Amino acid sequence: MTHPVTRQLHAMHDAVNSNDLTALQTLYCEDAFLVDKPRVSSRSDLQRALSAFKQRYMPEHIVSQGDEVVIEAGDTALVISKLYLNATGAVDCNVKKAIYVFRKNAEGEWQCAIDNFFGVDLIDYV
Amino acid sequence: MTHPVTRQLHAMHDAVNSNDLTALQTLYCEDAFLVDKPRVSSRSDLQRALSAFKQRYMPEHIVSQGDEVVIEAGDTALVISKLYLNATGAVDCNVKKAIYVFRKNAEGEWQCAIDNFFGVDLIDYV
Repeated sequence: MTHPVTRQLHAMHDAVNSNDLTALQTLYCEDAFLVDKPRVSSRSDLQRALSAFKQRYMPEHIVSQGDEVVIEAGDTALVISKLYLNATGAVDCNVKKAIYVFRKNAEGEWQCAIDNFFGVDLIDYV
Repeated sequence: MTHPVTRQLHAMHDAVNSNDLTALQTLYCEDAFLVDKPRVSSRSDLQRALSAFKQRYMPEHIVSQGDEVVIEAGDTALVISKLYLNATGAVDCNVKKAIYVFRKNAEGEWQCAIDNFFGVDLIDYV
């Protein structure tokens, strides 16, 4: 059975690929953090932050998802997921091991609280 | 200023090094997950699980901590931390990039909800 968090993660990447910022908004917690480098900073406007992020790192790419692990502890879940950034015309793609934290809200829906595309490499950036 | 989560993480590793299982118990959430391979599984008895884990991976080692990043989103925090496993008499030490999720409890104390020593490598184990 597919974990509900996996479905949410797929929905996030579908929304990124189709530029559906309204859908993205519903998939993140109100107090979510989108990690960017060189610094870890809060977001005041998720739509703006996500658009800027996409423009910077994946302007003409399709994001797809590979192997993943979901570790659930109560209303908190840690997700480690392989992400593939597929550039138009390129044979190879850039692989990241991204880290997410999801939180279950009062309605029982999982939302993304922390989105860390850079994975453990973040240690070496900050 | 040291993040409260950093202090808790240091306390966890001090407790591991000194075999203080009682202290460890207070540092983890009631529903915490200790990740072991090859499978991600729940823990029914944290003391037993932690002892078995230490015996298997670091029987005669001192654990110390290097660079780390704490990303806080409301009552949830993601931590990425370099861990050094120092074996007696060895010049080099084994370096891991561990991943933790902490949750703030009703008393405002941060406790470990998910302890993933294996970091993103876990994807390749499961």
